[in-house]
Amino acid sequence: MLVYVVKDCLVKALQLVLRAVSANSPYPILTGISIQALPEELIITGSSSSMSIQYKIHQGDRGVTVRRSGAIVVPARYFYDIIRRCTDEWIGLEILEGLKLTITSGKSHISLCGMDASEFPPIRGAKGSAFLTSFSIPAELLSESVRQVFPSVSTSESRPVLSGIYFEWGDKGLHLTATDGVRLASRIIQHEHQGCEGFSAIVPGKNAAEAAKLLQDADSAATIGISSNQICFSAQNLLIQSALIEGAYPVVQSIIPKRYLSEAITETAAFLHAVERAAVLAGEGILQLSTAGKALFLLSKTAEIGDVRDEVSLTDRSGENFALALNSGFLLDILRSMKSMFVILRYTGSWSPLIIQPSDAIESAIYLLSPIRTASH
Amino acid sequence: MLVYVVKDCLVKALQLVLRAVSANSPYPILTGISIQALPEELIITGSSSSMSIQYKIHQGDRGVTVRRSGAIVVPARYFYDIIRRCTDEWIGLEILEGLKLTITSGKSHISLCGMDASEFPPIRGAKGSAFLTSFSIPAELLSESVRQVFPSVSTSESRPVLSGIYFEWGDKGLHLTATDGVRLASRIIQHEHQGCEGFSAIVPGKNAAEAAKLLQDADSAATIGISSNQICFSAQNLLIQSALIEGAYPVVQSIIPKRYLSEAITETAAFLHAVERAAVLAGEGILQLSTAGKALFLLSKTAEIGDVRDEVSLTDRSGENFALALNSGFLLDILRSMKSMFVILRYTGSWSPLIIQPSDAIESAIYLLSPIRTASH
Repeated sequence: MLVYVVKDCLVKALQLVLRAVSANSPYPILTGISIQALPEELIITGSSSSMSIQYKIHQGDRGVTVRRSGAIVVPARYFYDIIRRCTDEWIGLEILEGLKLTITSGKSHISLCGMDASEFPPIRGAKGSAFLTSFSIPAELLSESVRQVFPSVSTSESRPVLSGIYFEWGDKGLHLTATDGVRLASRIIQHEHQGCEGFSAIVPGKNAAEAAKLLQDADSAATIGISSNQICFSAQNLLIQSALIEGAYPVVQSIIPKRYLSEAITETAAFLHAVERAAVLAGEGILQLSTAGKALFLLSKTAEIGDVRDEVSLTDRSGENFALALNSGFLLDILRSMKSMFVILRYTGSWSPLIIQPSDAIESAIYLLSPIRTASH
Repeated sequence: MLVYVVKDCLVKALQLVLRAVSANSPYPILTGISIQALPEELIITGSSSSMSIQYKIHQGDRGVTVRRSGAIVVPARYFYDIIRRCTDEWIGLEILEGLKLTITSGKSHISLCGMDASEFPPIRGAKGSAFLTSFSIPAELLSESVRQVFPSVSTSESRPVLSGIYFEWGDKGLHLTATDGVRLASRIIQHEHQGCEGFSAIVPGKNAAEAAKLLQDADSAATIGISSNQICFSAQNLLIQSALIEGAYPVVQSIIPKRYLSEAITETAAFLHAVERAAVLAGEGILQLSTAGKALFLLSKTAEIGDVRDEVSLTDRSGENFALALNSGFLLDILRSMKSMFVILRYTGSWSPLIIQPSDAIESAIYLLSPIRTASH
C-alpha cells in the first residue's frame, strides 16, 4: 500500500468511524481501524461487535492519490492522535514491510505496528449483497425521528427486543417505536414506497442513535437496506451497518388509549424549563402535575433536600381537571426531543398513561407515560 | 434574610466559588456554599478543607437589593442547578423558617433545606486581619507565572513541601519555584516593593493553580496578603484564600548549572508539535533528542506499538553536538506553558539537567529537566 491523503479528509473520516470503536473491546482487532486502499479510493472502517462505520475518500474528489493498493488494521487511538497532530497538508501512508504502517508528513516519519486486515470483520453492505428491502428517506428526517423515540428504549437487558427501536412499514409510511414498559414513543415518517409492505426489523437502540447522529449533517437522502440479520444506513461517503435484534416485538398499537378525558395545551419551552427545575431536586423522581382552570401546577418534594412548586399557563384546556404523578426524568426526555412550540397533554384516567403529543405533528408522533402510584393518588 | 439578586450576577458568583467545593467532601458543611446577606452586599463563599473562594455582589453595583440580613449554607450543586434554570431576571432568596431557603423566580417557588451558617469555616482575609506582608501585582502576570511553574509541582506525597509552589521575595522581585526532583521551573515576576524582603511561603500547587485560573480574566491588580499560615489573593469582587504548607523548601538556586556546553535555539511551535507527535506513542516515555548541524532530531521507540522520527530546524546553534533522553510528557508541559516564539536549549553534560528557557524572557524564566539514563546514553 502507498497512498497520499489530504490530512483534513483523513481526520474527518477518522472522527466518524472512531464512533464505532471501543478502546477496550475484548477482540484486539476491533480496537483498530481498517485502512483499505483500492485503485480509486481509500476506505476507512471502524467496528464494534454489533456495528460498523465506514467512510470512503475518493480519488476523484482529490482527497487521495492511491499509488499501490493494500490493507492494514492500525490501533485506532494512536493513529488518530498522530494524524491530527501532523502539520502538513498531505500525509503519506505506506506499508514497507509486513504489518507496519509508515506515516510520513513533512519531516516526520512514524512507524506504527498494525494487525492483519483479513481478520477485520467484513462489511456486507459494501459488497452489494442483496437486501430484502431497500428505500431512501431524507437523512435529516430519519435522524430527528430516531432521536425522538430513542429515550424510550429500555436500558434493562431482561427483554432484549425492548432494547431496540422497532422499524416497521405501515400504511402511512415508516413507523419507529420504542418502549420500556413504562413509557412509549412512536413516530411515523410519512413516505410512500412500493414493495416495502410488511417489512419490520428491531435495530439496537444505541446503534440507531449513533447512526442518527452521523446522518444528522448529511444534507441528502439516506438509503436504508435490510437483510435478514443486518440493517445498513448509507448517505454520501458514509455507510453504517448494524446487527438486528432477533425476536418478536410486542404489539403496541393496542396499548395506545383511543379516548381521553381531558386535554391541556401549553408552551413546550416554559413547561420544559419548569420540569427541569423540578428535576434538579427530584432527579428521576416523582413529579406531581395538576390542572386548575388555565394553569398547570408542578410539585416535587424530596425528603431532606427541599421541594419545588411551579406553574405554567395553559393556552387551552377542555374536559375535567386532573392530577397525576410522573417520573420527572422520563417527562424531561420527551419534552427535550420535541421541536413543536406547543405540547398537548391528554389525560386518559388515573391508572392509564398520559398521552403527550407535539401540536404541530399530532398525526405522526405520540408519547405515552404511565403514571406513578403515590399515597395521595 | 430577604434579598433580590440579578440571576446573571448570582450565576457568575456561583460558577467561581463552586471551584472550591467538592461534592464528596467528608465534611457535609463543605459540600454547601455559604450565602451571607449584609446590609450593603451579598457574599457567596465556597470552601474545601484547604482553600476558600469568596465573591461579593454589591448593592451599589445594582446586582442585589438586601431587604433583611441573614446567612445560610445550602447544598452547592442543587442551588447552582436551580439558579441557572430560573428564567426571570431577578431571583428572590428568603429564609422564612429555620434552615430553609426559599428561592422565588417568576411563578417558581423552591424550598431548599440548608445548614447552619455558623458551622461554615470563616474567611480570615475578609475580616481584615493583619497580614505579615501585603503587595499588589498585575493579576494577569501572576496568573501566567503560576501556570508556567505549576506543571513541575510534585504529585507525590512523600515530600509535602514539593507539592507546593514556593513564593519568595528576592532581589529582582517575586520568585516562584516548583520542582519534583526531576524537573524544576522558576519564574521571576520583576516588581519593586518596599518591606517584602526575605518573605517566603509554600502555597499548595493545586490551590495556586486554581487562583491563577480565577484571576486570569481580572483586568486589574491582584493583591496578595500573607499571614503565618494563610495566603490570600484578591482582585475586584473576588477573594481566594489558601492554607500554606509548613516546612522548609529546598534551596534550589545551587542546582541550576551556571555553565553550559552547547546551545540550540528553535521555534517553539514546531518543536512542540514534534514532541506532541512523539508523545502519542511514548506517553510519558523516553524521547531521544540529538543535534547535528542546524537540525534537532527527535526519536521515540515504543515496543510493539511503533516509533516516531522527527526533525526540527535550529535557528541557531553553538558548542558541541549533543544527544540525551528526556521524559516526553515533562518536556511537553514546559513547551505548552511557553509563550515565547523561540526556545533556547542549553546542554550542560550527559548527566546534568538540560536548561530550557524562553528566548524573550531569558532573564525571568528557567526550566531544568534531568536526562533519563538509557542503554545507549
